[in-house]
Amino acid sequence: MAKALESLLRALQGLPGVGAKTASRMAFHLLQHDRDGALELARALTRGVAELRHCTRCYTFTDADLCPTCTDPARDDTLLCVVETPADQAALERTGVYKGRYFVLMGKLGPLAALGPQENGVLRLLERLQGAQGDAVRELVLATSFTAEGEATAHLISQALKGRDIKVTRLARGVPLGSELEYVDLGTIAHALADRR
Amino acid sequence: MAKALESLLRALQGLPGVGAKTASRMAFHLLQHDRDGALELARALTRGVAELRHCTRCYTFTDADLCPTCTDPARDDTLLCVVETPADQAALERTGVYKGRYFVLMGKLGPLAALGPQENGVLRLLERLQGAQGDAVRELVLATSFTAEGEATAHLISQALKGRDIKVTRLARGVPLGSELEYVDLGTIAHALADRR
Ligand SMILES: [Zn+2]
Ligand SMILES: [Zn+2]
Repeated sequence: MAKALESLLRALQGLPGVGAKTASRMAFHLLQHDRDGALELARALTRGVAELRHCTRCYTFTDADLCPTCTDPARDDTLLCVVETPADQAALERTGVYKGRYFVLMGKLGPLAALGPQENGVLRLLERLQGAQGDAVRELVLATSFTAEGEATAHLISQALKGRDIKVTRLARGVPLGSELEYVDLGTIAHALADRR
Repeated sequence: MAKALESLLRALQGLPGVGAKTASRMAFHLLQHDRDGALELARALTRGVAELRHCTRCYTFTDADLCPTCTDPARDDTLLCVVETPADQAALERTGVYKGRYFVLMGKLGPLAALGPQENGVLRLLERLQGAQGDAVRELVLATSFTAEGEATAHLISQALKGRDIKVTRLARGVPLGSELEYVDLGTIAHALADRR
């Protein structure tokens, strides 16, 4: 097999969920039917790596110091919604119901709560709540997934904020147990937001 | 959402089988955990598009005029195996049973046999059989998929070669009906090759 094809197949297998057979299909599709798409993807990857970094306030991906959601003057500074990923944040935004700020933990908490990479996200959240913007927060809406890991993360954050003058709420249990937020239908998410407790 | 992130999500959705949610997961994985992998993929895509073209003899992807299989002096010129895709060819090669040459049709035949893009592949095959290398071919092994499209393609090729001094065989029916070759286990493929009729 040509070296360039081997490299391409191997690189595609670096994508999450892509094994040898999916990589073949992708490579042959791009080479056979969509070479422009292949070059566009190459440019988008290079540009994304060069330009995208974490928002210094909410930690989502952005191409500036602060993301558009953090700088939007129309948003309510007293409300802060904690999500696991930018995809979860996007799912909440699509409901059109929530007008506060966000904090994106990034990554999922493993079964060992104390050692998961998301612990760093929790630490960053606690720092965020100590800054000048943190003082404005009156309610923290925990919108982590309703999985064992998401519940553990929510519990960890609740515990860490005991004694602080911040109301901690959780999305209502309209969200089906065991599911991940980004796959839930909009109506259910909107209902769960309205019924937060 | 940052423009660079939007472009990346859109470009990833250009990959076959990748919708909005899979694209999000891929983008966030690359940006969060594997920026080197993202750059490697960008380079592999650019290099693949620049270097990879079709072998002038068998039509598979290669970085030279002729692919290594076509130039391998140890292979039997009298046997030519017709496959739909390079992935199918790779599946046959992994059995280690076949020592002839290949012809890769590229693409699948649609329900309308006469109008599918694979018809071009069939025309290219007929041209290939008229060249100097074509004269050496004594047996054509049809290894198209055992689907309606694959059977139609095999039938089309058999008909086109009526009256030519070439034995046309088909992989034996050890291959499960309705399945695509690249997903079949090696033992079944090897058996089907030995029993070709
Ligand atoms: Zn932000
Ligand atoms: Zn070749």
